[in-house]
Amino acid sequence: MGRWQPDAMGRLQRAALELYGEHGYDQTTVADIAERAGLTERTFFRYFADKREVLFAGSHVLEEKLLEALALTAPSAPPVDQVAGALEAADEFFIDRVYSRLRQEVISSHAELRERELIKLASLATAFADALRQRGVSEPSATLSAEAGVAVFKVAFERWIAKKEKRDFSTLVRDSLAELKAATTTGR
Amino acid sequence: MGRWQPDAMGRLQRAALELYGEHGYDQTTVADIAERAGLTERTFFRYFADKREVLFAGSHVLEEKLLEALALTAPSAPPVDQVAGALEAADEFFIDRVYSRLRQEVISSHAELRERELIKLASLATAFADALRQRGVSEPSATLSAEAGVAVFKVAFERWIAKKEKRDFSTLVRDSLAELKAATTTGR
Repeated sequence: MGRWQPDAMGRLQRAALELYGEHGYDQTTVADIAERAGLTERTFFRYFADKREVLFAGSHVLEEKLLEALALTAPSAPPVDQVAGALEAADEFFIDRVYSRLRQEVISSHAELRERELIKLASLATAFADALRQRGVSEPSATLSAEAGVAVFKVAFERWIAKKEKRDFSTLVRDSLAELKAATTTGR
Repeated sequence: MGRWQPDAMGRLQRAALELYGEHGYDQTTVADIAERAGLTERTFFRYFADKREVLFAGSHVLEEKLLEALALTAPSAPPVDQVAGALEAADEFFIDRVYSRLRQEVISSHAELRERELIKLASLATAFADALRQRGVSEPSATLSAEAGVAVFKVAFERWIAKKEKRDFSTLVRDSLAELKAATTTGR
């Protein structure tokens, strides 16, 4: 019980996602997840506050990583490009497309989880805007750039988890940024 | 009691906002709001499902108005300009800056209300993206343009309710759109 469990966190996340897919999010309990992972409920609660947080456990670490990456982008670039440049650092988090796709399907099918996702993205936009202001970008440019950057993030992520998509996340960020630029300048 | 009450809805909204400001949102009941407005609780529930919805009652009508306005913008314009053009139609809703500022202060100070606001804005972005696709804008341009347009909406609204601001909402939309364009193209 007290023994070190190799990759206990990952096993719990995969078990949770399997069960949410098989029986539905509402029908799955923490006890079910622990059992499927071959671990105890006590171990579950060492990693996650509740069954919802299994799906969002990485978001704080991701946000920190993206803010670190923002600090390394060229401050002479357009502010939206600075944010998009930071987003490319998510490549090291976005590796398992199948896991990410299943996770997004669970989130999309539950209002409570969609709300949690919106809050997470709003928090990311606020953090980007703060960081841009600290780099000397004035308002309203900082907030607009942060929000536009989060739109690029959402769209690139949706494309990345699409079936048959082979490009990595950073390629899709660059492509989505180019699409945003075209959408602000080019009509028909 | 059954009599027609002149501007009952507006009286209830102003009474609610006064009480949320004076005693806090959590401490205010529907009975308090009805009493302050000189109306019955029954009248309150004719207009609003609960005390939260008093703050969001107009959002569905606003969304419809903005979508109607989108249909009247030039389909040859860049998609982000189409959305921003639609946003200018909100001028007829955004008249009372003091009411809107107090409302936003109440929303900002409560997590539950901030979440409701995020959901409302996400719904607006989804509706804009659907409408753009129906006008022939392809993905990911439609979603990116809709999200960027909602960012312009948020920023223009924050500026519009700022103390000492005199410009009308549509002027601030045009200005925020220009700022967004600069933030996607111009570095330093």
